[in-house]
Parts: sequence; structure tokens; C-alpha cells
Amino acid sequence: MTYGYNGKILRVNLSQGTTSTDALDELFCRKYLGGAGFVSYFLLKELQPGIDPLGPENKLIFALGPVTGVPLPGSGRNCIGAKSPLTGGYAKSEVGGFWGAELKHAGYDAIIVDGKAEKPVYLWIQDGEASIRDASHLWGKNTKETQETIRAELGDNLIRVASIGPGGENLVRFACIMNDLREAAGRGGMGAVMGSKNLKAIAVRGHKEPEVAEPERLKELRQWVLTQGELRPPPYNDLDTWAATTIKDGTATGNIPIRNFQDGEFPEISKISAKAGRDTIRIKMETCYACSFRCKKTVVKVDEPYSVDPAYGAPEYETLAMIGCNCGVSDLKAIAKGNELCNAYSLDTISTGGVIAFAMECFENGLLTTKDTDGIELRFDNAEAMLKIIELIARREGIGNLLAEGTARAAQKIGKGAMEFAMHVKGVEIPAHDPRLKAALGLGYAVDPHGADHVANFHDDFYAQPGAQLDKIKPLGVLEPLPAGELGAHKVGTFRDVYLFRIALDHLLLCILLPYDAKRITDILAAVTGWRTSTYLT
Amino acid sequence: MTYGYNGKILRVNLSQGTTSTDALDELFCRKYLGGAGFVSYFLLKELQPGIDPLGPENKLIFALGPVTGVPLPGSGRNCIGAKSPLTGGYAKSEVGGFWGAELKHAGYDAIIVDGKAEKPVYLWIQDGEASIRDASHLWGKNTKETQETIRAELGDNLIRVASIGPGGENLVRFACIMNDLREAAGRGGMGAVMGSKNLKAIAVRGHKEPEVAEPERLKELRQWVLTQGELRPPPYNDLDTWAATTIKDGTATGNIPIRNFQDGEFPEISKISAKAGRDTIRIKMETCYACSFRCKKTVVKVDEPYSVDPAYGAPEYETLAMIGCNCGVSDLKAIAKGNELCNAYSLDTISTGGVIAFAMECFENGLLTTKDTDGIELRFDNAEAMLKIIELIARREGIGNLLAEGTARAAQKIGKGAMEFAMHVKGVEIPAHDPRLKAALGLGYAVDPHGADHVANFHDDFYAQPGAQLDKIKPLGVLEPLPAGELGAHKVGTFRDVYLFRIALDHLLLCILLPYDAKRITDILAAVTGWRTSTYLT
Repeated sequence: MTYGYNGKILRVNLSQGTTSTDALDELFCRKYLGGAGFVSYFLLKELQPGIDPLGPENKLIFALGPVTGVPLPGSGRNCIGAKSPLTGGYAKSEVGGFWGAELKHAGYDAIIVDGKAEKPVYLWIQDGEASIRDASHLWGKNTKETQETIRAELGDNLIRVASIGPGGENLVRFACIMNDLREAAGRGGMGAVMGSKNLKAIAVRGHKEPEVAEPERLKELRQWVLTQGELRPPPYNDLDTWAATTIKDGTATGNIPIRNFQDGEFPEISKISAKAGRDTIRIKMETCYACSFRCKKTVVKVDEPYSVDPAYGAPEYETLAMIGCNCGVSDLKAIAKGNELCNAYSLDTISTGGVIAFAMECFENGLLTTKDTDGIELRFDNAEAMLKIIELIARREGIGNLLAEGTARAAQKIGKGAMEFAMHVKGVEIPAHDPRLKAALGLGYAVDPHGADHVANFHDDFYAQPGAQLDKIKPLGVLEPLPAGELGAHKVGTFRDVYLFRIALDHLLLCILLPYDAKRITDILAAVTGWRTSTYLT
Repeated sequence: MTYGYNGKILRVNLSQGTTSTDALDELFCRKYLGGAGFVSYFLLKELQPGIDPLGPENKLIFALGPVTGVPLPGSGRNCIGAKSPLTGGYAKSEVGGFWGAELKHAGYDAIIVDGKAEKPVYLWIQDGEASIRDASHLWGKNTKETQETIRAELGDNLIRVASIGPGGENLVRFACIMNDLREAAGRGGMGAVMGSKNLKAIAVRGHKEPEVAEPERLKELRQWVLTQGELRPPPYNDLDTWAATTIKDGTATGNIPIRNFQDGEFPEISKISAKAGRDTIRIKMETCYACSFRCKKTVVKVDEPYSVDPAYGAPEYETLAMIGCNCGVSDLKAIAKGNELCNAYSLDTISTGGVIAFAMECFENGLLTTKDTDGIELRFDNAEAMLKIIELIARREGIGNLLAEGTARAAQKIGKGAMEFAMHVKGVEIPAHDPRLKAALGLGYAVDPHGADHVANFHDDFYAQPGAQLDKIKPLGVLEPLPAGELGAHKVGTFRDVYLFRIALDHLLLCILLPYDAKRITDILAAVTGWRTSTYLT
């Protein structure tokens, strides 16, 4: 097989309880690259039109890229795709951590899960061997209990686990899949698809690093990126993804959503600023596979009034905003607790925060009452209510059963004009970037097949002045800053280019936060595979 | 200034007899790169609509690229552009040799020549200084006499000269400009524009190699290309550009034109095959600036019945075909003599061969008679007639005055259905590649603003099977061979990509014959300038 790949796809038919292997040839790999490319290829080729996303006919695909698992920062990612129970269309979601790299080391490039197991199972993959194992004892457990139980019964603490908690089991339409407890393949309801198949987890252990075509060249690229750590703004390794936002210095400038995207002002914003996070709930920074950029907060300082388990990490920017100020909540400890709950239950924090904020606005406007909420005063800034609703959603209890359907479906069921308050695109809750500030990003929400996706998108403020972000797209011919508020032909053309660049990262798979520019990704691909490529796109 | 460039354009106003310098900034260089990019930028910005291509308002632009003059094979080229006296539209032509590299070393990135000198002049550029010098004594001389006289009077035998002979002086519409006697900026009549300005030559001497951003990386790339010499088909360094054709083994397969594109069969083809050329008229191979690929034949064996001066090199494939079998001529010695005459007089061998073949077909069909030709039996296979007509065209004497207008204009003047025999696109004689064999190449003839251009074009047979040529465009996503005879949507899309790739080479400027693929050209540009770029094109 070609460098960078194992040349193997693991097929798992849960209805029949069988596994098998497909071979991948070099031409296929070069054409579709991996990650999002593999996912969309197999979904397009193998899914019948009209199937129920939560039925056994849907397929759940875990795909790696050529770069996954090679010793280079940003290479720990994998992509997960399926027909989405949230949108009814194509969905894919990328996730970091260590699981993807481990799967590469275990001998596969992708897993295609088909059918539905009769009773709960998990998949165990070790150095090219796969088996389907009983998971009855794991059903109902949160992701940490699941991971710990699997590691204990297989007797290896270095096993990497991708799993769902009760959110996925209960088919919450925006349930996610958790890698290593802290990293979420968040959007589009991949966890619900996993739950619908009675697949609790995929445990992986591998010992073989992929061979690469030009190890010395790869080492050079690694050395280069290692020197970038302290230099580039924003300083993720100090302030994490919170730093990338307008709340860095404790001011709301219009990007972060306030109370279900109603308000621009949030006087309490300094309580949840990047610096406040660093100086209060955080004690250290952690990282993903092979990565020198320590952009992951870990929380351990929280104990009163909530105890927060640091194994689940700390809220990233999206979580902070969506279950925080978008719900009117400015209590960092409550937000850290909400993050823990979502990761334990496998709920996408963006959609969770979005649907709770929607419900709060409905409640404030009398479309929902305490009769609907079993007495919960579901008002903005009620942190306790926010946390309680997360529990109810995960278990589909009371109002949680309605909200587990996602904002768009809930609004339809509530009726009475609730759709006015439903902040979604194509059924996907809008993440914490406001298109009224980022015009081209709004275009991205509109045209992306996944709906409101902030990752494969154009963040206008990144490119409105010279700097590291503009440098990343200079190889695409974008040599001068583009005004943030504008949306003319040149801007839209550039939006397309940047969108495709980011999609390319989802094929390779490389982390979007790292300073790899549109030329360097072809250098990396050449070093790994030996292929000579370009970011040329027609 | 940025690496790879001097940051200076020399402006020459011949009407006023003045020179001046414009500064180039980095953003401009990065946007327009050089070569064809600079030429088209300045022509578009500075020429008034409707001007006479042979009037003083036309501008003649000599442009280098970032790669010109750096120590790398293929970097000896320059581009020359102007409004074309042949097409009335935009024209540019690239040329190899040593002159371009010398101009880079002399401190400039381009020369823009405006106006018209009262009497013949030449330009002398030495290490950042430029002067306009009298050339009255050079007028009427051929290119070798011109070069030798200039070198002698300036006292430096290493001066590089771009010049015109009588063809350019006499405004032959397809006159070329000769670098170093052997290399022609052939197409579009740039030599006539030079002649119309009374500019006989540009003599250059420089001593400063351009600084590059990453000398070690450039060295690596040079080392890489040096190892490719013996490997890649076709073996230009053994058989030169003749090898790239279907006559390599002495068979005509439909690409090479026979008797003004009338015939597919030419039994005499083995007399002018690549091997015949190698084994009879050639004695050695020479090369361009910094190039390890010795693809230039030198002829010295010819003395009877013609004496051929080896200083003018030997016919390349286009010359061989156009003044050879396209005129029905299979006498290699006569073809070598014709090549010498064209290079001495600064006539484009393609257009010259094309217009003579056209006249021969007119003669064979009675549209021209010995009355028109002053007694010359202008029939196919009459090598003497072919040589004689070259002389007449250069001097615009007799029938030569008509043919100096180019095929399209001559056909119009002859009338009587002569246009049926006029093998041109947009006024430019069709080169020696037949679109009936190469379908996408024909599309290129049709859509290229220069008319029938075989260089910035798609040669279907290159990409019809795996190999070095296909490898060069793999980075553009062309992973599988494309059938030669086909012209479907995918082929046309690929045609566009390859066309743009070749145009990119004309910006950098890099030789199209070298094995640089669409990724490596960005590696080269990065090593030279430090810029991170891609072949991404929207």
C-alpha cells in the first residue's frame, strides 16, 4: 500500500454480527484522500435514498486521513459521517484527541458500520483484528464509566475509546460521539446514529506507526511547526479557543451570541472572558496526539457548588458561549459543570446550548410555561435550569424529550410562532459566531450541506487585517485584507476558496487551528505519501 | 526588495531618447509574478485602444520572472510582449538562451520600450546603468554581425544580445527577436515591433546573481532535477525537440504537417527523423543558462551544397516540420540552411514555413504563377525555392513583400479562394501540431488570445498514457490517462487546467520542457522568493 495509509477499511455489519475488510488502492486514496472524502464517497455510493437516519440502513463511517497518526502536530483527528438525524442530509464531523491516531496504528483507514445490533455491543480493534463484544453492562453508563470499564476488562489502560453516553443511547438528535472523554465529534447527531445501532463504543489499540515517504522532510516540517508555538496570535496555548473570539479581553463585539442571539450587550462578559477562564477554573493545558500546541484547558479547581470531573476537560469557546451567555449564564463554574455533563452524556454542546436558549426565549415569551417544564423557571441566566435541562435532554424526560428533537423540530411542535426563536440553519443550531458580524460566515451557514457549520467556514475577522490567519490563505492568492462587513464578488470568491481549503484539511485530516498554510499542507502530504499535489481546485 | 526580483523596471522612451526606472513593490510582484503576467499587466494598463501595432504608440515589453537568472535548469528564459502586427491583439512570446538571465544579473526585472527612435539605435545595459546608442552602422546587418559588432565595440565578449535582422527591420509581420543568435521569441511579430521602433538590439551585461530566500532548498531542487537528465522520456538531450514528435522513429502518425497540412503520408519522413538528424547534420548538443538538459542541436557538418554557420544552431522540431515537410522538403541540409537564414534575418520559422507552404499550395493550384514569383517554380519539395523565398520575405522583395504580410493577409490579397489554403488561427500560422490528431490542442488554438500557440497548450498524446508528462500534471488532480481522440467535458476541464499550468510557467519563467511538475513549481517559487503559493486558480 501507499505510504500514509494502511490500505484497509474495516466493515462491521451489526445486524449479522460480522466484520470484514475491504482493500483500498492507491488511486482511490489519492482521489478521495481520506476523512471527509472517504465519508462522502461511501455515503453517496452506499446509502439508499429516503432511509431513516436512525434506522439500520444508515451507515456510520469513521474515516482517517493520510496524515492521521503520523508524528506531526494536528494529526490526531478523525472524521465521522452518516445521514444526519438532525438535518436528514449528509453530515460529517471532525474530532481530535488520540483515538484517530490509535486506529491508524491499529491497521485501518476507516470503519464502516452497517445495520443494528440486537443488543448493545462495542467494537474492539487491536492491531488489525476486530471483534464485536457485548456491551449490555455498559448501556446507560456515561462515557467515562464506559471507557474505564472497557480498559479494565481488556486489561490495557492505553486503549483509546470513542463512545456515547445516554444522550446517544436515547437518540437525542444532536448527540455526539466522544473521543477520549474530552473531544467531541459534535455536529449532526452522529452519536444518535451510533445509539440507533446499539453500538456503545469503539475501543482501539495499535502499535504500528504508518510508514511515510520522506521521513526527513516530515521531520523538517515538524521542526518548523514546533517553532511556531509562541509566535502566532491568538495564543491558543495560553487562552485556548476562547482567545480566538471577541471575548479575549472581556468585551462583546457582536460575534458571541447573547440570550439566544437576541442581544449585543452582555455586561457580565468579563466574568467569562478568556483571561477569567485562565485565572479561575483552569489549572493546566493539555493537548492531542503528537501536538505541541497545548490548547485544551483542564478544569480541576471547581468543587463548590458543583464538583466537576477534570477527566472531561473544560469548556471550549463554543461551549462557553452556547450554554453560557447564549443562555444568559455568566457563572463559569456552572458552565464548566454543563460541559462535563454534555461530555459525559455525549451531547453536542453547541446544539444543547442552542436548544436550551431557544426554550428559554420561548419561556420568557410565554410559549412554554412551568406546566411544560415540570416547574422549572426556564429563564435566561438561570444556571441551575440550564444544568437540569441537560440532564432531561440526555434522558429524554419531560421537556427534555421535546428538546432532544433539536430546535427546529421542537419549534414546529410548540407552534405559536416559536419558529421565530429557532436559531438554526437546515435543522442545525447556529454555533457561537454571529453572521451579522461575519457576513461571509453567514453565507457559509447558508450554503454548507451541513447547515450552520463554523469549522468549514470563513471567519471574516480573521482575514480583515494582516497576520497569521491571512498568511494561511495567502497561497490561495489572497494577498490583501478583506473588509469584514463587506460581501462583494471578490469576498464571495475568496469565501469559496477558504471554504475549500478548510474542507481539504478535513480530508487530510489536519487540525484547522495549526499554522499550516495552503502550501504547507501539500508539502505535508508529499512528505507522508510521496504524492505531488496542489491545492488547485476547479 | 523581495528575493528573486531586482524591484526595477527600465523604461525607455525612444522618441525622447530617455531612460528611467520604475520601482516594483512586493505586492505587485506577488500578484503578477513576472513574464507573461508583467507583459499583460502593462499592455492592458498602458496601451490605447486602436493603435497601430507598428506605430510609436505600441510598447515592446521584455519581462523576466522571479526564477529568471537563479542557478536552476530552465531559468534562462524571458518573455516579450506587445500588440501584435500579425493578429492586432495581445501577443507574447517566451525565449530561452542566456539573455534573460543576464538582464536579471544586470539589475532589472523588465524593460518597457515606448516610442520610436529617429534613427537606428541599440540599448546597452550594464549593471544597473542603461544607455541608448547609435546603431546606424548595424542597420541591415544580420543578427550575428550585429552581436559581433556590439561585443567588439563595447569590448566584452560575454555581452548577451537580443536583436533583429533585416526581417524585423523590414517589418515582416512575423519577424522574431533573437537571443544569442539561436533562440527566438518567435510568435506574434515581436521583431517587427522592435524594427518599427528603430531598435536594432538590446545588449546586456550583469554581474549580480539574484539573492534567493532559501538557497539550500533551491540547491536541493537543483540536485533533484540534475538526477532527472537521463531518465525522462522523450530523451531531449539525445534527440532534442524532434524526439517529442511522432517522427522520432521515422513514421508520420498524423501530428506533423505535410504539404501545407494537406497530407498524412510522407514517405520521405525517415530522411528528417530525429535519428537522421542526430546521425547526419548534428555534431553536438548545447544548452541554455544554468541548464543541465542539453536539448539544443548544433550543426557544423553541413557545407555542401550549402554552408551553414553553426553559430545559429540547428532547426528545432517546429522549424524542421514547417520549412521541411510542410513545404514538402525532406532535404535536411536545406532545412538547416533555412533555419540559419531565419535566425540570421530574425524570421519566425513557424510562420515563415507556414506562409511558404501556403504560397506553394496556391502555386500548385494556379492562384500564383511564375509571373507573381519572378520565375520561381514555387512547388512543394522545391528546397531551393523555399530558401529563396526566405530571402525575399526578409527583404520584402517581389513575392516576399506579399508573404511578409503573413498568410491571412496574403490570402486576402490574392483572393480567388486562396483563403481555403490559409492555415492560420487569428492570423497566426498554425504550428507543427495537427489538431486533427490532438483534439484539445485544437481547442487551445481556438481559445488562446494569441491564436495558434502550441506552447501554452495541451498536447493530447502527452496525457494519453502514464509517464513523465502525465506525472507533471498529476498535482492538478489528473490521475489517469485521458484518451487522445476524445473531447468530452472532463478532457476540456483538464485542458483548461493544463493550459493555466503552462501559462504559470510563462509567469515564473520556467522552461516547459523540464520535468517540473505543478507542485514543484511552487516549491521553486518558495525557495526563490520565500512566498508560500499554490497552483490554486479560480
